Amino acid sequence: MSPLDQLTQWIAKLPGLGPRSARRAVLHLLARRETLMLPLIEALSQVAAQVQSCPTCGNWDVGEPCAICRDVTRDPSVICVVEDVADLWALERSRAFRGRYHVLGGTLSALDGIRPADLRIEQLLARLSADVKEVILALPATVEGQTTAHYVSERITPFAIKITHLAHGLPVGGELDYLDDGTLMAALHARR
Amino acid sequence: MSPLDQLTQWIAKLPGLGPRSARRAVLHLLARRETLMLPLIEALSQVAAQVQSCPTCGNWDVGEPCAICRDVTRDPSVICVVEDVADLWALERSRAFRGRYHVLGGTLSALDGIRPADLRIEQLLARLSADVKEVILALPATVEGQTTAHYVSERITPFAIKITHLAHGLPVGGELDYLDDGTLMAALHARR
Repeated sequence: MSPLDQLTQWIAKLPGLGPRSARRAVLHLLARRETLMLPLIEALSQVAAQVQSCPTCGNWDVGEPCAICRDVTRDPSVICVVEDVADLWALERSRAFRGRYHVLGGTLSALDGIRPADLRIEQLLARLSADVKEVILALPATVEGQTTAHYVSERITPFAIKITHLAHGLPVGGELDYLDDGTLMAALHARR
Repeated sequence: MSPLDQLTQWIAKLPGLGPRSARRAVLHLLARRETLMLPLIEALSQVAAQVQSCPTCGNWDVGEPCAICRDVTRDPSVICVVEDVADLWALERSRAFRGRYHVLGGTLSALDGIRPADLRIEQLLARLSADVKEVILALPATVEGQTTAHYVSERITPFAIKITHLAHGLPVGGELDYLDDGTLMAALHARR
């Protein structure tokens, strides 16, 4: 296979790209060899060489532990449990949380055969020292997410640590008319 | 900036990808370091090192001239003029054409300031030796494409070479009901 076909096949494996958009991407890169293709190779090589999974929280970052676990200005008494690193990054972008994280690496799913041992749950329990005052279960509001939250909170209960969940309700800027019944009901029950 | 943010920014410059899908791609790559990230770096490096623009036809390929220009089984008496390499690849996938190509590298556009000197028109004229019997203008059926086709055919006229255009008509598998009036009219006029 020619190098161009090989590159197209690899790019087509990225999420959201198919063979057609991969070909477009390859032509785009070829036309911008110095300004895009070479910097992209350099950036990929740097990430491949330097970025690793943090052994403490599971975040992807340069250095061990990651910048968030190293940051002494962050509150170590609150651990926010998330499904994956994408959710951790989303919370970081919101700048609403200044504690530590723990990435589970997925949610429990009988359908996909994901059992508790496949998630980083034991590593979470190992972090629950006397310093930890609260665990926030920031898991998705799906069946799998809530099953996982339930399982994790049962495992944390013996530690006598405060367990909290993200609030359900009206998204900021959202119209009531477009909201599903379940969310509307949750928003009404949790009214302040 | 961290290597992860840098990589996200470079990936977001690919066509069809924004910051959000670039973050997804980065996380996808990190989770598949050996099976996707390293092979992708290798494929990109090979393309960057080996692939170049063919000085004859303008195709991207390994070697000089490209595989199509080198292929002695292809008819050198017919040159198919296309806007860009994506169109050349589309024609190659159809396996309908066994002649040679010439990539113009764009279409004339007063709006975008693309003049004849910006396209590979002089290189096309230089290829029109006594061996060339036909030039197919496979340019897009847009205003710019047809303006370019008109200009190129005017430049070729002195060479007394047959000039042809792609037929307009009903796409294979297409419904009449969904076709625009212009195409329907063209298909009717060109009825066989």
